[in-house]
Amino acid sequence: MKNKIIVLGAGLVGSAIAIDLSKNYDVTSVDLNIESFSKFKNYQNITIVQADLCNTNSVKSVIKDFDLVIGAVPGFMGYQTMKAVIESGKNMVDISFMPEDFLELDGLAKKHKVIVVADCGVAPGMGNIILGYHNENMQVKTYECLVGGLPVIREWPYEYKAVFSPIDVIEEYTRPARYIQNHEMITKEALSDTELIHFDGIGTLESWNSDGLRSLMQTMKNIPDMIEKTLRYPGCVEYLRVLRESGFFSYDEIEVNGTKVRPIDVTAKLLFPKWKLKEGEEDFTIMRIVIEGIENGEPKKYQYYLLDKFDRETNIISMARTTGYTCTAVSNLILDGGFSTTGVSAPETVGMGKDNLTYVLKYLAERGVKYKIS
Amino acid sequence: MKNKIIVLGAGLVGSAIAIDLSKNYDVTSVDLNIESFSKFKNYQNITIVQADLCNTNSVKSVIKDFDLVIGAVPGFMGYQTMKAVIESGKNMVDISFMPEDFLELDGLAKKHKVIVVADCGVAPGMGNIILGYHNENMQVKTYECLVGGLPVIREWPYEYKAVFSPIDVIEEYTRPARYIQNHEMITKEALSDTELIHFDGIGTLESWNSDGLRSLMQTMKNIPDMIEKTLRYPGCVEYLRVLRESGFFSYDEIEVNGTKVRPIDVTAKLLFPKWKLKEGEEDFTIMRIVIEGIENGEPKKYQYYLLDKFDRETNIISMARTTGYTCTAVSNLILDGGFSTTGVSAPETVGMGKDNLTYVLKYLAERGVKYKIS
Repeated sequence: MKNKIIVLGAGLVGSAIAIDLSKNYDVTSVDLNIESFSKFKNYQNITIVQADLCNTNSVKSVIKDFDLVIGAVPGFMGYQTMKAVIESGKNMVDISFMPEDFLELDGLAKKHKVIVVADCGVAPGMGNIILGYHNENMQVKTYECLVGGLPVIREWPYEYKAVFSPIDVIEEYTRPARYIQNHEMITKEALSDTELIHFDGIGTLESWNSDGLRSLMQTMKNIPDMIEKTLRYPGCVEYLRVLRESGFFSYDEIEVNGTKVRPIDVTAKLLFPKWKLKEGEEDFTIMRIVIEGIENGEPKKYQYYLLDKFDRETNIISMARTTGYTCTAVSNLILDGGFSTTGVSAPETVGMGKDNLTYVLKYLAERGVKYKIS
Repeated sequence: MKNKIIVLGAGLVGSAIAIDLSKNYDVTSVDLNIESFSKFKNYQNITIVQADLCNTNSVKSVIKDFDLVIGAVPGFMGYQTMKAVIESGKNMVDISFMPEDFLELDGLAKKHKVIVVADCGVAPGMGNIILGYHNENMQVKTYECLVGGLPVIREWPYEYKAVFSPIDVIEEYTRPARYIQNHEMITKEALSDTELIHFDGIGTLESWNSDGLRSLMQTMKNIPDMIEKTLRYPGCVEYLRVLRESGFFSYDEIEVNGTKVRPIDVTAKLLFPKWKLKEGEEDFTIMRIVIEGIENGEPKKYQYYLLDKFDRETNIISMARTTGYTCTAVSNLILDGGFSTTGVSAPETVGMGKDNLTYVLKYLAERGVKYKIS
């Protein structure tokens, strides 16, 4: 009998995950917004369920007959959803990009003897798995990850489309960015330290500090230098800085003609329709990971380069492919028994397993998501 | 006995006007906000009156014992205030920069036999007077006016302080800009056609189309090419374009978490504190007018160049000096009998009078506002 998997959230990434897993498993997709399910019209074997996942009781109720839960809800719902899944005694792979520290749920997951892998997308996700692998085999000195998901067609002024939850995008622009330099944690403003970098086949992009290291800051204390930066088309970052400086990203209520309003809500209302990736609009994902250190007594440098594009055959966006298929690769790994550590694990823990990186890279390559390793 | 003058509005410009006129006249200043009157602490001869000038009945009541009314209210109150003054049978000089066409009140003013000069500041104002003068003496082919009021200290991102009513500043960024090319009216977006221009002693500024010709489009139909552009520090115009494109200047209500709000009101609330010229913060005014044509059968080119700075002795900002003293010059001209045309006149009509430009330039020069003519 096929394993039964339930995918919570049928957004851009969640739906791609459900479609991929439905090839080998009995898949159910859950969302509040039934329009999301239109993406499954050619995949009749996916069961659809409408439910409000903000309500943890309905989460617990909907998942009770399943072998594995995939968390693909927006970041702000991520923590409470993961907690509910653990309390239900279910294994889980999550890509919600929650602002909270998911490792705090490790004890609870161990108590319930469930296997949970969090942050299991492209970034965070693949970078962690790759670093986890190399950290077992060499003395890593520096880890640098540059990553971006961008529309192929650039539209002034933002030249950006939200390829994941837009409210999480604005979080990236406001949350202070942390990186590790000489074993010390450095905190800078988001959108700081811009640098122009050339990528073959794409041209010049601009990198800036975002708070992307997440669990690596706890799990990789042996590595002296670690940084993640976000990539965008050059120049646009300045407009975001201007909006932030002007107060448009503020969560503090202001009074406008007698009513109270949060500027962030007004900004979201104005910008999200403009940042929405329209049906058929093409995107690409670019990621460059450089790991340097000492291996077998010799200085060694590894580079992983990913340039993935929108899939015109299936109309699945690149960000859903690169994020979603990492998640489904690890889901398969768990169901195949390749990763069985109970508790909440960061993806670097998955990478530590001897053959897991190879497994994941092969799974991704079969779906056209190809990392060039040099 | 001294003439009695009442100044409606005690903002940055209105207060400078009251102070200047109080040297020779019996002056009363009116405002709703009594804090505005603090600027008069060294000018005890100015009578202060608190009144709500949004209410035209209180306008009519407050002006009834005066010989001349100065209109220095924000643009949106300008038209109704001028109408109330005319209906009260009072002469008026106005700098409110109203969005409506003040020439529509000409008939009413003629009926009441009052002398009204509108738009009587630096721009609109001085450019009109100068063009009015030359248009009497030559066949003008082109009129170009570049003008800006800027803070001396540049602060990222806007490098701008509102030296007149901030809501009128945003109007400049949204109202389509019109200019005359080969006798045809061309309409472009505000903030369009940016050009970098060098000014000695200031450096490079950026010009863009603003809707500044106003009455000249009606009164100077003989001139084939006329344009006014606004000057700002380079680059900042792009941020304003981004805000406009993103919808932050929109007057259309949007619904945010169940309450309706106009984005422009949120933007105003966030930006006006940042755009406020702080006490003692220095500004400058720059204007370059070029008039070309045929005079006495010969090609002729006149250039008027104004670079005026904040007055450290009186703490009066340059924009108040250049705008306010043009207004007080014309007020003096009227009280001296030098301009007695009834109806509502644009300042170019004042300029047509043989010696009026000389009178105004001399009056301004006595106050340190010096136009270099070449």
